[in-house]
Amino acid sequence: MQTNGIDLLVLFPSPNLYYLTGFMENPGERVLMLILPASGEPCMVVPQMYKTHIGHDAWVSDLRAWKDGDDPVSLLKQAIDEKAPNPKKVLVDDQMWSLFFLPLQQVIPGAKFDVASSLLGQLRMRKDAAEIDLLKSAGKMADQTFEWIITQPFEGSTENEIANLLSAKMTELGGEEVAFTIVASGPNGAMPHHNTGSRKIERGDVIVMDFGCRVGGYYSDITRTVICGEASEEVKKVYEIVKQAQAAGVNASKPGATCESIDQVTRAVIDEADYAKEFLHRTGHGLGLELHEPPYIVTGDKTILEPGMTFSVEPGIYIDQKFGIRIEDIVTITNDGVMPLNQCTHEMQIVK
Amino acid sequence: MQTNGIDLLVLFPSPNLYYLTGFMENPGERVLMLILPASGEPCMVVPQMYKTHIGHDAWVSDLRAWKDGDDPVSLLKQAIDEKAPNPKKVLVDDQMWSLFFLPLQQVIPGAKFDVASSLLGQLRMRKDAAEIDLLKSAGKMADQTFEWIITQPFEGSTENEIANLLSAKMTELGGEEVAFTIVASGPNGAMPHHNTGSRKIERGDVIVMDFGCRVGGYYSDITRTVICGEASEEVKKVYEIVKQAQAAGVNASKPGATCESIDQVTRAVIDEADYAKEFLHRTGHGLGLELHEPPYIVTGDKTILEPGMTFSVEPGIYIDQKFGIRIEDIVTITNDGVMPLNQCTHEMQIVK
Repeated sequence: MQTNGIDLLVLFPSPNLYYLTGFMENPGERVLMLILPASGEPCMVVPQMYKTHIGHDAWVSDLRAWKDGDDPVSLLKQAIDEKAPNPKKVLVDDQMWSLFFLPLQQVIPGAKFDVASSLLGQLRMRKDAAEIDLLKSAGKMADQTFEWIITQPFEGSTENEIANLLSAKMTELGGEEVAFTIVASGPNGAMPHHNTGSRKIERGDVIVMDFGCRVGGYYSDITRTVICGEASEEVKKVYEIVKQAQAAGVNASKPGATCESIDQVTRAVIDEADYAKEFLHRTGHGLGLELHEPPYIVTGDKTILEPGMTFSVEPGIYIDQKFGIRIEDIVTITNDGVMPLNQCTHEMQIVK
Repeated sequence: MQTNGIDLLVLFPSPNLYYLTGFMENPGERVLMLILPASGEPCMVVPQMYKTHIGHDAWVSDLRAWKDGDDPVSLLKQAIDEKAPNPKKVLVDDQMWSLFFLPLQQVIPGAKFDVASSLLGQLRMRKDAAEIDLLKSAGKMADQTFEWIITQPFEGSTENEIANLLSAKMTELGGEEVAFTIVASGPNGAMPHHNTGSRKIERGDVIVMDFGCRVGGYYSDITRTVICGEASEEVKKVYEIVKQAQAAGVNASKPGATCESIDQVTRAVIDEADYAKEFLHRTGHGLGLELHEPPYIVTGDKTILEPGMTFSVEPGIYIDQKFGIRIEDIVTITNDGVMPLNQCTHEMQIVK
């Protein structure tokens, strides 16, 4: 912070807060903030009902509690006046709600604000050995869940039913929190972030399954696309292209390459096959305490890959109104190359 | 908006966005905004990969898509310049991340900002018949889950295992999304928002279970406290006080009463029994598309209750290092009184 001329960092319940304090909570309507000055001890302004909990989990010992019915903004102002009076340059949590950021701006009207990730992103995107172990464990649960789900009957099941099976399996394997489960069948597969619904799976459907869970706060995220019964020639063709694009992206990932170069490699395979317009999104995203976090494998992200950086490689082709195909693995950059954290097959699987 | 002199409303993926457009999505790192001027048609700035999905779900037809790698902020600026040039008073989503709010402030530097709930909260807190039906269905799933869980073995199970059973049951009953499951046993119960963990339940433990799910986007939220094996005299005494406080709060809920008066009624029972300091939080919160939303049953919330308003009544007593007891029902204000949306017993249940 001192090197960058930053006087104060203010966080809100978020992955950043967990990373710096050890306290994990979802955002809520109560003021709960970390006040971290460039020098001296940090403090937290916390709801009274969380005080024991935060005292137990967080490394910060100076906790200033307010009760429901009190005015927490005056407590916040007092804490800032004491820790970093009249701060000029302040970083705020990227995910801080405007409900809290608006009063914060009023409390320190002279400050210039930027997002916390401009500083913390640099730390968080380089995973250490302990973080990689957790990411590996989470990845293994996703693999095992995929290997199991393809033994289950698909035809006649709804997307929700398949999603529930995926969630239950990850939970059984020890996933702490099932983060999301996208099951997109038939034409729904053409929407990359389809909300899993009540559509019944039919013979001939292409089914995109994108799911993951957490271990020790760290995510897994895998996508596999399977076919119910029999694949058409078009589906077989598109599947091969996506498979090759995904492999090309993984093979290009190594220390020294830029994030955008991985996107270009993946995209080139799909462009070459004349599906450029059907590849609707970037190639991937970083992953750790958040499902999506820096670095991003996208045009414009010039981050140079370093050992420990962990991200998804997940090209997809989406044929509007018909089907979608996406294959996704998480990979970690090593000293001399790349280590996939997902091991299960990329070959097209036919389910019943 | 015109009555209140508001020129522009800008929303981000949130319950407000779902309420106004029919499109539901979690917040993410991509710019996705609704631009709603005080007069004329709204538009949305959306990531390309969501366009089909949003076109399918949302009532807004003017969708302006950007691709990964493009600059979405210039698209946002162009949309605002067209729909509401130089807006003076702008409402932004309460939950908009500072990551997006900071560039929005730069795009319209002359504007004065306030949170969207200052306007939308008034609409959202009065539930109509269709909304109440969904809340009832969600409440029934929570009730049935409680009635089932108390037939299961607790002694020797971990908090996580009990939480998984609760989640699986709600999913089996048709809950679309299991929102949260707090299982706090023994001393952990003294932390109202304890993160469910690996502690094994022992004979004599008091176990707080706070859980819920969604139906059609609307939440349920129930808390019951059960005892493993046998209750001490202290536990029996505290349980009775919480039960009486909860019932007093529900009985006082009717059209014309203020929110804070319900808090006072509940609190008076606990104060009278000399546990004022152990009641760590407000009496309750509104609930609908969000788990916590206006009105709040807390000192200072002078909202006058009207038919359709729906909220929790959930007093608790927390004995530090020992145990916690909380009882929570959701209630809806009717034309002449109150209708609880949870029906399962308030009597102390002993589990095995």
